[in-house]
Amino acid sequence: MFLPILCVFSLILSSHAAVQDFCVGDLAAPEGPAGYSCKKPANVTVDDFVFSGLGTAGNTSNLIKAAVTPAFASQFPGLNGLGLSIARLDLAVGGVVPMHTHPGGSEVLLVTQGSICAGFISSANTVYYKTLKKGDIMIFPQGLLHFQLNGGGIPSIAFVSFSSPQPGLQILDYALFGNDLPTELVVGTTFLDKAQVKKLKAVLGGTN
Amino acid sequence: MFLPILCVFSLILSSHAAVQDFCVGDLAAPEGPAGYSCKKPANVTVDDFVFSGLGTAGNTSNLIKAAVTPAFASQFPGLNGLGLSIARLDLAVGGVVPMHTHPGGSEVLLVTQGSICAGFISSANTVYYKTLKKGDIMIFPQGLLHFQLNGGGIPSIAFVSFSSPQPGLQILDYALFGNDLPTELVVGTTFLDKAQVKKLKAVLGGTN
Amino acid sequence: MFLPILCVFSLILSSHAAVQDFCVGDLAAPEGPAGYSCKKPANVTVDDFVFSGLGTAGNTSNLIKAAVTPAFASQFPGLNGLGLSIARLDLAVGGVVPMHTHPGGSEVLLVTQGSICAGFISSANTVYYKTLKKGDIMIFPQGLLHFQLNGGGIPSIAFVSFSSPQPGLQILDYALFGNDLPTELVVGTTFLDKAQVKKLKAVLGGTN
Amino acid sequence: MFLPILCVFSLILSSHAAVQDFCVGDLAAPEGPAGYSCKKPANVTVDDFVFSGLGTAGNTSNLIKAAVTPAFASQFPGLNGLGLSIARLDLAVGGVVPMHTHPGGSEVLLVTQGSICAGFISSANTVYYKTLKKGDIMIFPQGLLHFQLNGGGIPSIAFVSFSSPQPGLQILDYALFGNDLPTELVVGTTFLDKAQVKKLKAVLGGTN
Amino acid sequence: MFLPILCVFSLILSSHAAVQDFCVGDLAAPEGPAGYSCKKPANVTVDDFVFSGLGTAGNTSNLIKAAVTPAFASQFPGLNGLGLSIARLDLAVGGVVPMHTHPGGSEVLLVTQGSICAGFISSANTVYYKTLKKGDIMIFPQGLLHFQLNGGGIPSIAFVSFSSPQPGLQILDYALFGNDLPTELVVGTTFLDKAQVKKLKAVLGGTN
Amino acid sequence: MFLPILCVFSLILSSHAAVQDFCVGDLAAPEGPAGYSCKKPANVTVDDFVFSGLGTAGNTSNLIKAAVTPAFASQFPGLNGLGLSIARLDLAVGGVVPMHTHPGGSEVLLVTQGSICAGFISSANTVYYKTLKKGDIMIFPQGLLHFQLNGGGIPSIAFVSFSSPQPGLQILDYALFGNDLPTELVVGTTFLDKAQVKKLKAVLGGTN
Repeated sequence: MFLPILCVFSLILSSHAAVQDFCVGDLAAPEGPAGYSCKKPANVTVDDFVFSGLGTAGNTSNLIKAAVTPAFASQFPGLNGLGLSIARLDLAVGGVVPMHTHPGGSEVLLVTQGSICAGFISSANTVYYKTLKKGDIMIFPQGLLHFQLNGGGIPSIAFVSFSSPQPGLQILDYALFGNDLPTELVVGTTFLDKAQVKKLKAVLGGTN
Repeated sequence: MFLPILCVFSLILSSHAAVQDFCVGDLAAPEGPAGYSCKKPANVTVDDFVFSGLGTAGNTSNLIKAAVTPAFASQFPGLNGLGLSIARLDLAVGGVVPMHTHPGGSEVLLVTQGSICAGFISSANTVYYKTLKKGDIMIFPQGLLHFQLNGGGIPSIAFVSFSSPQPGLQILDYALFGNDLPTELVVGTTFLDKAQVKKLKAVLGGTN
Repeated sequence: MFLPILCVFSLILSSHAAVQDFCVGDLAAPEGPAGYSCKKPANVTVDDFVFSGLGTAGNTSNLIKAAVTPAFASQFPGLNGLGLSIARLDLAVGGVVPMHTHPGGSEVLLVTQGSICAGFISSANTVYYKTLKKGDIMIFPQGLLHFQLNGGGIPSIAFVSFSSPQPGLQILDYALFGNDLPTELVVGTTFLDKAQVKKLKAVLGGTN
Repeated sequence: MFLPILCVFSLILSSHAAVQDFCVGDLAAPEGPAGYSCKKPANVTVDDFVFSGLGTAGNTSNLIKAAVTPAFASQFPGLNGLGLSIARLDLAVGGVVPMHTHPGGSEVLLVTQGSICAGFISSANTVYYKTLKKGDIMIFPQGLLHFQLNGGGIPSIAFVSFSSPQPGLQILDYALFGNDLPTELVVGTTFLDKAQVKKLKAVLGGTN
Repeated sequence: MFLPILCVFSLILSSHAAVQDFCVGDLAAPEGPAGYSCKKPANVTVDDFVFSGLGTAGNTSNLIKAAVTPAFASQFPGLNGLGLSIARLDLAVGGVVPMHTHPGGSEVLLVTQGSICAGFISSANTVYYKTLKKGDIMIFPQGLLHFQLNGGGIPSIAFVSFSSPQPGLQILDYALFGNDLPTELVVGTTFLDKAQVKKLKAVLGGTN
Repeated sequence: MFLPILCVFSLILSSHAAVQDFCVGDLAAPEGPAGYSCKKPANVTVDDFVFSGLGTAGNTSNLIKAAVTPAFASQFPGLNGLGLSIARLDLAVGGVVPMHTHPGGSEVLLVTQGSICAGFISSANTVYYKTLKKGDIMIFPQGLLHFQLNGGGIPSIAFVSFSSPQPGLQILDYALFGNDLPTELVVGTTFLDKAQVKKLKAVLGGTN
C-alpha cells in the first residue's frame, strides 16, 4: 500500500543521471579547469571511493630519508571534484621533506608516529616553525614555502590532507636544479653562487 | 556611415565561440565536476532556456499524497552552470514530503496555494518549523534535514528554488529502507528496532 | 542507558558556535565581500527563515503597470550567504519590466498567472524571446539585458529566483536617464539623439 | 651592497596588512558567510597554526562505544578560511558512529588502527560500503548519509579530513529524536511507528 | 649520491598527468561551465603562455574612433581556468567605447597614453566618472554599465584586465539596435521613441 | 506623467544598502577570509575606484635594478572583493625580479617598454621561459616559481595583473635568507652549502 510513493519521486530517483553527488574521475576522458570528466554513475562501485595505497610505508632508503605517497585525484579518482586529497609521509631518522610549496591548496599535517619539526614562511617573510609530537596537527597555508624534518630518534609517520584534489607540489631544489633552466638564469634570479648552482644541478640531474 | 563600428568589435562579436554567457548542457557529452559540457552556441535556441513542465499538477494519488516535479539541469539543461534550479511541489490534503536533504544546495520554498507546515533541523540540533500561508517563503540551508506537510483543508502548491542546478535529493526513508543496505547495518547505525526496519523495508522495496 | 552518547558528541553539539549551517544577516554589523555578518545563532528563530512579503500584489497603478517586490538578503536576511534569493513580479495588462540586468546573478522566472513575453540578449548579440504561459519557466543568464512584458488580456504574476542573495538590479532607463550623468556623456556613449535623452531625463528625474 | 633590494619591495613587505596568506579566526569578532574575522597578523604566532588535541584517545565508555574529537575552525581557528579541517575518531570494539551527514563538506576517512566498516548512500539511493583496514582511505561526498562501525576485534582509530573548515555534523538520531520536534511531526515525516519514536526520544532526551 | 631522491618523488613527478598547475584550453574539445577542456600537458610549450596580439594598435579609422583587441581565453587559451584576461584599447582623439557591460567579470583599466574619461553606473543608480591620466587605473565592478571616452588632444591607449578568462562583452547599442529584436519590443522596454529606434537600427544593421 | 515608475522600484532603489555591486575596503574594520569589510556605500566616491600610483616609475637605483609598485587591495581598497589587482614593474638595464611566487593568484604580465626575459617552472618541473617584446603578454599560473629579467639594452616597463585582489608575494631569497629561519634549517631543507646560506643571510639581513 505504501508503494505508490515510488512513483511520486520516480522522475528524480529513476535515473543516476539526474544527480551529481560525486564525479569519479575518468582519467581517459577530457579534463577541464574544474577536474576530470566523470565516470558514468552506473559504472561506479564502492571501490571507486576506497584507496589502499597509504597502508604501506614508502621507501626511505634514499639520501633525504623520506618518502611521500600521494592519494591525489590522479591516483584516487574518487576525489575528483570533491575539494580535498591526502598523502602519507614517511621520514626516517634524519629524514627531510625539502622546502616546497603546493600551488593549489592548503595542507594540514597530522603526526601519527615520532616527532617532526615543521615550518612555513609567510608572504610577510615571517617564519613559523615548531616541533610536533604524535597527535599534533599543523596547517600550512596555500602556496607558501614549507618543510618537514625528523629530528627525533625514531622514524616518523605523518598524513597530510589538502584543500584540493590536485594541490600540486613544487619542490624548490627540483625547480631550481633538476631541469634545463640555464645556470645563468638560476644564478641571476636567486643570487646563489654559480658553483653552488652547478654542484646541485649535478646532483639532481639538471642540465644547461 | 555608422557601419564601421561593426568592424571594431568584430574580433569579439563575430564568433559565438568567443563568449560564454551560458552553457546549455549537452547531456550526451562528458560531464565534469562543474556540470555538463556545453551545447554549441550556434545550435542554441530560445527553447533551450524555456521549460514547460511545471504548469501541470503532479499526481498526488499516492500514499504520501504528494508530488515533486523537478526542473534541475538534467530535465532543463539551460540551467547548467548557472547556479540555480527549481521544482514544483503538490501536496494534497494531508500530503507530506518526507524528511529529506539536498546535499548540493540551499532551498527557498514559496507557497502559491493553501498552507504548508515546513521545518528544518540544524547541525546544532535546533528545530525551526512554522506553518506557511500563501505568499510566504521559507529558506532551508544546504544539506540539513527538512520536511513539508499540508495540514490545511485544501490542496497546496509550492515552488522551490535551489542554489545549484543539481542540488540532489536524499529522502531519509528511501536512503534507510529502500535499497539493499543490510538490516543489521540500518539497525546498528540508527538504533531503530529491527522489526521497525524490516516493516519499512517491506513497504519501500528494500532488501537484505 | 543510551544517555552517554550525549557526552560523546558534546564537543560538537554543545555550542552553537561550533557550526555554521547558516549566517542570518545582521544588517547593523560589518558587511564583507561575501555578505553581511552573521546574527548570533542563539538569537536566531524560525522567523529569521520565513518572509511574508510576497503574498500581496505590488501596486501596478503606475505608468509601466508593473511592480517588483524583492526578497533579497537586505529584505530577508535569512538568505545571507546561502546563494539564492527571490522576488515577486506583478504585471497589469500592458505592464512591462523595462530592459535591465542583474549584475550579480542568473534568474529563473516562473509564471503563476497570465502570460508574459520575456527575452534576453546575449554577448554574441543574439536575441532569445518567447511568450510564456502559466507554469512555464525561463532562465536569464547572469548580467545580460532582459525584459518582461504582459501582452495578454489579464494581469500576470511571476516569481523570479536568483543565484545570489544580492543579485543587484540595473534598469537601463534609470541608469541612463535617472541620475546626474551629463547629457553629453549619455549622447556620446549611446548615440541617442540629444532631444531623446533630454526628454527621458525630464521624465525620470535626471539632471545635467 | 645587496641591501638596496630591501627598499624595492618595501611597499609590499613592510606591512603585515599588505598580505593575506591566512586568516586566523578571531572567535570574538564578527563572523561572516566566509568564516570568522581575522586575528591581526602581528599577533599571530606559530601556536595559531598548531593544534594538539588529537593526540589523545576520546572516551569511548559510552553506549555507542565511540568518540569524535574535532579540529574544526571553532576549535582550531588557524583553519579559518583555508578550506579544510580534520577530526579524530575512536571506535571501541563494537563502536559505531551513527548515520549522519556533514552539510558543508566532503570527508576522507583514514584508518590508522584496526578495521572499520564504513558506507554512504547516494542521492540515487545506491549504497556503497566496505570494510576498511589499516591504511585504507574512503571518501564520503558532501551532504550524504554515511556511517562507520568497528566490527573487528580490536579498538579502531581513524582520522577524518573535510573539505571545509566548518563542515557541520548532523547525526540522524539526534536530529529526529534529540530535540523538541513533536512526535507527530517525526512520525508524519519518517513513517516510523509512534512507539519507536517515543522510545528513542526517551533515550536521547527529546521532548514533545 | 644524491640521486636516490629522484625515486622518492617519482610517483608525483614522473607524470605530467599528476598535476594541474594550468589548463591550456583545447578549443576543439568539449567546453564546460568552468571553461575549455585542457590541452595535454605533454603538448604544452612556452608559446601557449605567451600572446603577441596586443603590441599593435587596433584600427581606429571608424566612426567611434576606437578599437578593442581582446586576449580572452578564446584568443589566448593559456588563460583558460586561471581567472583573468586582458585586452588593449585604442582611442583616437574623440574616440569612444560606447556604454557596455561585461556580464562575467570586473575590469581594471590602466591608461598608458593620453587621457580617458571613464565612468560606471551602480545598481543604486549612482554615477561614478572621472578623467584619467597616464598611469591612472580605474575599476569597473562586474556587470555594471560603463564607458570610456578620449576627450583629450592626443590618441589614448589603455589596457584592461578582467577577473575572468571569458568576461563577455555586451555593448548597449548592439544589444538594442544591432539584431532582430522587434522595434516594438525595443520601444516597449526602453521607452525610446520609435523614430529613434528605427534610426539606430538602420545604422547598426538591425532588422524587424 | 512617467514619474510613477519611481515608486515601482523604490523598494529596491531607495536604499544603497539594498545592493552590493562593490565592497570598497574599509582597512580599519574587521577583515575576513573573503577580504576587508565594506565602506558604507553612501560614503563611496569615484576616488575610491581610481588609483594614481602607477604613473610614476619606481626607483631602480638598487642592486637588483628593479622596482615593483603594487595596487593590491591594501593600497587600492576599491579592488576589495572584485577578484583582481594590478602592479607596475620597472626594470633598469640588467634589472631582475628574483625568483618568486604569488600564493594567492595567477598573473598576466604585459610589456609596455623594452623587452623582458620571463619564465616559470611547473609542478611537473618543466621550465617555460621566453624573451618578451613590447606588447607581448605572458601568463604565470598561480603559486608557481617565476622570474623576470631585463636582458635588453633599454629600461623595461611592465604591468602585471592578478586574479586576486590580494595575490601575495613570496620572494625566494627573502624567504630563505631574509628572516630568522636558522641556518641549519635552511641548509637542511635546501641542500645549499652552509657558507652560501650565511653569505646571503648577511646580505639580506637574515639572522640565526
